Amino acid sequence: MDIRPGSTLGILGGGQLGRMIAMAAAELGLRAHVYCPDENSPAFDVCAEHTVAPYDDESALIRFAKSVDVITYEFENVPGATADILSAHAPLAPNAKSLAVSQDRLLEKSFIADLGIPVAPFADVADEADLAAALERIGRPSVLKTRRFGYDGKGQAMIRPDTDPAAAWAAVGQAPSILEGFVLFEREVSVVAARTASGEFAAFDLCANEHRNHILDTTRVPAGVSAETERQAVEVARRIAEALDYVGVLAVEMFLVTADGTERLVVNEIAPRVHNSGHWTLGGAVTSQFEQHVRAVCGWPLGDTARLGRVEMKNLIGPEADAWRQVLAEPGAHLHLYGKAEARPGRKMGHVTRVFPESA
Amino acid sequence: MDIRPGSTLGILGGGQLGRMIAMAAAELGLRAHVYCPDENSPAFDVCAEHTVAPYDDESALIRFAKSVDVITYEFENVPGATADILSAHAPLAPNAKSLAVSQDRLLEKSFIADLGIPVAPFADVADEADLAAALERIGRPSVLKTRRFGYDGKGQAMIRPDTDPAAAWAAVGQAPSILEGFVLFEREVSVVAARTASGEFAAFDLCANEHRNHILDTTRVPAGVSAETERQAVEVARRIAEALDYVGVLAVEMFLVTADGTERLVVNEIAPRVHNSGHWTLGGAVTSQFEQHVRAVCGWPLGDTARLGRVEMKNLIGPEADAWRQVLAEPGAHLHLYGKAEARPGRKMGHVTRVFPESA
Repeated sequence: MDIRPGSTLGILGGGQLGRMIAMAAAELGLRAHVYCPDENSPAFDVCAEHTVAPYDDESALIRFAKSVDVITYEFENVPGATADILSAHAPLAPNAKSLAVSQDRLLEKSFIADLGIPVAPFADVADEADLAAALERIGRPSVLKTRRFGYDGKGQAMIRPDTDPAAAWAAVGQAPSILEGFVLFEREVSVVAARTASGEFAAFDLCANEHRNHILDTTRVPAGVSAETERQAVEVARRIAEALDYVGVLAVEMFLVTADGTERLVVNEIAPRVHNSGHWTLGGAVTSQFEQHVRAVCGWPLGDTARLGRVEMKNLIGPEADAWRQVLAEPGAHLHLYGKAEARPGRKMGHVTRVFPESA
Repeated sequence: MDIRPGSTLGILGGGQLGRMIAMAAAELGLRAHVYCPDENSPAFDVCAEHTVAPYDDESALIRFAKSVDVITYEFENVPGATADILSAHAPLAPNAKSLAVSQDRLLEKSFIADLGIPVAPFADVADEADLAAALERIGRPSVLKTRRFGYDGKGQAMIRPDTDPAAAWAAVGQAPSILEGFVLFEREVSVVAARTASGEFAAFDLCANEHRNHILDTTRVPAGVSAETERQAVEVARRIAEALDYVGVLAVEMFLVTADGTERLVVNEIAPRVHNSGHWTLGGAVTSQFEQHVRAVCGWPLGDTARLGRVEMKNLIGPEADAWRQVLAEPGAHLHLYGKAEARPGRKMGHVTRVFPESA
């Protein structure tokens, strides 16, 4: 694989992540070809070429793969068959293993636990009898989550002391699931890091994430944890990346649990892609996560992850994006809008990054 | 004019400036439609729509103008007739006056001088007799420059004590020209500033420019002049922008002349567009000149022009861009490549921005 400026990066998925990857690729002199089933994909507006076709259209996938020099994706639910077809014709990064592990919560949790990295207690739930047994073992409160296709709180049901397990089982659509012990966490933090095929690894500073209605609302950096906890968090991300032979940017979401003045990390999930909690790097770090991903996927040297100050990233969800003019008038604020036509409730329309002097 | 995210910005010219304007527009949620006669235009790779047609194709221009909400351009040599056709169908910024003044060195110098702003002594040269008279008045060394279409040292002839005026006249193709007194300057500096239709004005910090083979090689900020000189330089740019009723980013190139410890500014020329000497703002200032131009042209609030440190911008000319991998490996360096296929000598292929702590 010899990717140079002028080469074409294939991107599967045309949402805001694909859009920001395409723009980072263009800044480095690459062409981007975006593949997405939706003809109104935001990424189509910033790429040299695009294909509108379903993810199971074999001939379109082959044509796409043959037209590019390397392929990446913006979402972890790329079907295994799609990944197989593509990787027969062009290098695919991150690799198929990273996709498989992150697509299935049971595989994911087992994989991480097998590395000796703390995760919440969990149990496989294939049917209602499994759920009863799992509740017996793990206790309440706990969370029932579908093994596949959950995001932003979808496909999850909290099981409280008074919750009828049958109702929770119905709430997740009786789909193959796992039961996870509820982690009473102080805050959610994440590591956004990159690894190259040659084993180079670089992490951005740990960030703290606040959710609203199960959707990321605000990311703050630094995360306000001890230096030792931050070191451990990065080490966890490095071990996961190495075990996956990972290439690209990945995000590892963790819960910070504090008790008796000690800090402990419990890994929640892996995202084998650029991640919303890394958006702060665009304008808040020397290299953005999008550029870093492009560098890693192309086999280029990783960029400088140094932070430019204390950073806050605020998602603009649905009608929050209507405040664009106020944001534009605010000194020091960086506005990013994704070019989505319709501001549906819960839809990520853009984000604002604010960089402050470190001490402020 | 009510431009909002989701609107379409028309950009005339598909080179690297149009490309970087298109990307800045996309970051703010705008669509970009680029019009350029060259089907291999770098900007086509990052825009939602493009038109390949000559600048005198009236029907293509009208279709283009009707498909966008506001129009800008990346080069000052937009023909007057083209500007007239476009502005009949959509707002055009900067305005026709700014184009006319900057397209013609005689008009430009007269316009600036009439504002009471120092320029080099100059004279209209329509024929060889004019040249003889002008040399009589202005003396040598002096520079003969075509009134129109000169850039990067093209269309210029230096007249030294031993230069045959006829040879200089031949060198500029006997085109309508002006003779300018040679300014023995300490360095070239430029102000990159923006003005909106409502009169809001904001300048980036003054920068110092070094040329090689008549092409900008390096820009450094700060420019190393006194605070008073910097204030005067910004004031000159503001007065020019106001006199032109200017909308958008403009660059004013000036010579810094030092004598007996005093600093004096002599305006060289105006560029009614984003400018190579403002590339340092991309990564070196809170707001880039490209975003600032988009904001101004759309009638949006101007962005924060604060500088992020001491900044150096180095153009990558021709084969210099072959060092892309070394630049990628350099901590703190921002690489920008323009997606041009062929690294012809003298061709601007990209640039690198380096941001250092203010004191270093």
